[in-house]
Amino acid sequence: MEKIFFALPGNDVLAKSLAGKCHAELGKAIIRQFPDGETYIKIESDVKNKQVILICTLDHPDKKLLPLYYLSKTSKELGAKSTCIVSPYLAYMRQDKRFEPGEGITSVYFAKLISSFADSLITIDPHLHRRNSLSEIYTIPTTVIHAADLISEWIRSNIKKPVLVGPDSESEQWVSEVADKAAAPFIILEKIRKGDEEVEISVPHLEKYKDHTPVLVDDIISTARTMIVTIGHLKKAGMKKPNCIGIHGIFANHAYSDLLTAGAEEVITCNTILHESNKIKIDEMISLSINNMQNEINKNLKK
Amino acid sequence: MEKIFFALPGNDVLAKSLAGKCHAELGKAIIRQFPDGETYIKIESDVKNKQVILICTLDHPDKKLLPLYYLSKTSKELGAKSTCIVSPYLAYMRQDKRFEPGEGITSVYFAKLISSFADSLITIDPHLHRRNSLSEIYTIPTTVIHAADLISEWIRSNIKKPVLVGPDSESEQWVSEVADKAAAPFIILEKIRKGDEEVEISVPHLEKYKDHTPVLVDDIISTARTMIVTIGHLKKAGMKKPNCIGIHGIFANHAYSDLLTAGAEEVITCNTILHESNKIKIDEMISLSINNMQNEINKNLKK
Repeated sequence: MEKIFFALPGNDVLAKSLAGKCHAELGKAIIRQFPDGETYIKIESDVKNKQVILICTLDHPDKKLLPLYYLSKTSKELGAKSTCIVSPYLAYMRQDKRFEPGEGITSVYFAKLISSFADSLITIDPHLHRRNSLSEIYTIPTTVIHAADLISEWIRSNIKKPVLVGPDSESEQWVSEVADKAAAPFIILEKIRKGDEEVEISVPHLEKYKDHTPVLVDDIISTARTMIVTIGHLKKAGMKKPNCIGIHGIFANHAYSDLLTAGAEEVITCNTILHESNKIKIDEMISLSINNMQNEINKNLKK
Repeated sequence: MEKIFFALPGNDVLAKSLAGKCHAELGKAIIRQFPDGETYIKIESDVKNKQVILICTLDHPDKKLLPLYYLSKTSKELGAKSTCIVSPYLAYMRQDKRFEPGEGITSVYFAKLISSFADSLITIDPHLHRRNSLSEIYTIPTTVIHAADLISEWIRSNIKKPVLVGPDSESEQWVSEVADKAAAPFIILEKIRKGDEEVEISVPHLEKYKDHTPVLVDDIISTARTMIVTIGHLKKAGMKKPNCIGIHGIFANHAYSDLLTAGAEEVITCNTILHESNKIKIDEMISLSINNMQNEINKNLKK
């Protein structure tokens, strides 16, 4: 089936790259706001009988949902066979249970909404914590891409004598995998979260890593409070200036400059959310997933 | 059935007033943004077996949709019998057909989405243009309240010798009704729209209204371009400074101050969207509708 890619606002660079790698058309669409704040949608390319791929990373998701929904609905109405959302950063993965009575379990509601209008979803390392797989909440086929290999490779090529530092026990499995492939040792911190922006950290014994370069790794850098507190501890312990790597760089408020001010040597992210720190490119891996999904569909069509 | 009211952000004043008029509880809920831009929801009042009334006017709707959806879903999950959205200003009523090939018919998609998670909807004078009724697009019960009587009353009490001025032929039926009840004459302009913010206006012969106070009336004041152009024409024709009345004051960009600068004597709106121009209160009419809806439900329950 023929594919056509569309970029939601802010996703043009990635959409163009992915369309190129998949040898597919980059579709033209007008997505703009009326003066009253409502969204206007117009698809200018032919989508009939095609597989529509919507490129839309979902940081700051609230204002992005309706345009994404409208573009998907319009595509189907104009004859598209299916719509696939490629969302390198997937939103609403954190509130995955009712921690206190009365809370909304937004991860479930969001998944239900996306599943109601799109036919499939591709994402990079969603923040799966208390859930094992996206299929527990999404009712459409989902593909999860892992950035661990790319991060290991980047560390191996760019950092001399690294020691990886994971933020909490939750991250241990992932950090140990990255460390293993980067042929580096790792340590895991203990984190006590006290609010959205407040954290306390305990740092284990660091003596034997004095000649190493610490590399703080985490899946999401949002307020960066954990990393900033950790940088402070490493400084006190007389360690070298650390590098900070996140898969997804949300950088709430001034998190990026705060990290550099706090003493990070460099801050590196994957290009799941467009930012100057994007040194690790996930385009190739996404394009492979899109093609694999295509093969699955073709196999099913032949049956 | 017991009712409980919740205010979505920015709707506290109206929610409190409506709960009071309906002798019902004003519920407590936390609706806030995480630093990464995601919404957190927590309902702190008991909603079990109650009819939940969500007060949420829908100007600038894109960022409001997910919080509204989450609050409705959470209510139902916590045992609410039903959720009713009271949206004094209803969004996405203008793009009600495919004017050009490829356009998304957002009024239909939006109605479908709202209908998928709420059980009923109450609104004030939605911008029904090519549609006769909300039931053509909404699959849930809807109640439409008309502000015409309140506007007539305001004009009769506040303006000496008014002449009403309607913006276009589309508005004639409504303007003539308001004029009739205000015991005032009216004239209708012809409008040629040239873009989101550009309009051309033709003004009919005004000689015989030189000693009248022009009252420009429209359902929505968004960019206010039509009214501003009209004010210019009235000035040239040597008319008195006009009053401008809108049911819904969106006031895109600097529309409110632009109107005053252009020469409006006063700008008056209904309180469907919170603004300093809110001189005409719709609280009483909405509370009656909520109670009527309740009676309907009770009648059905008895059957």
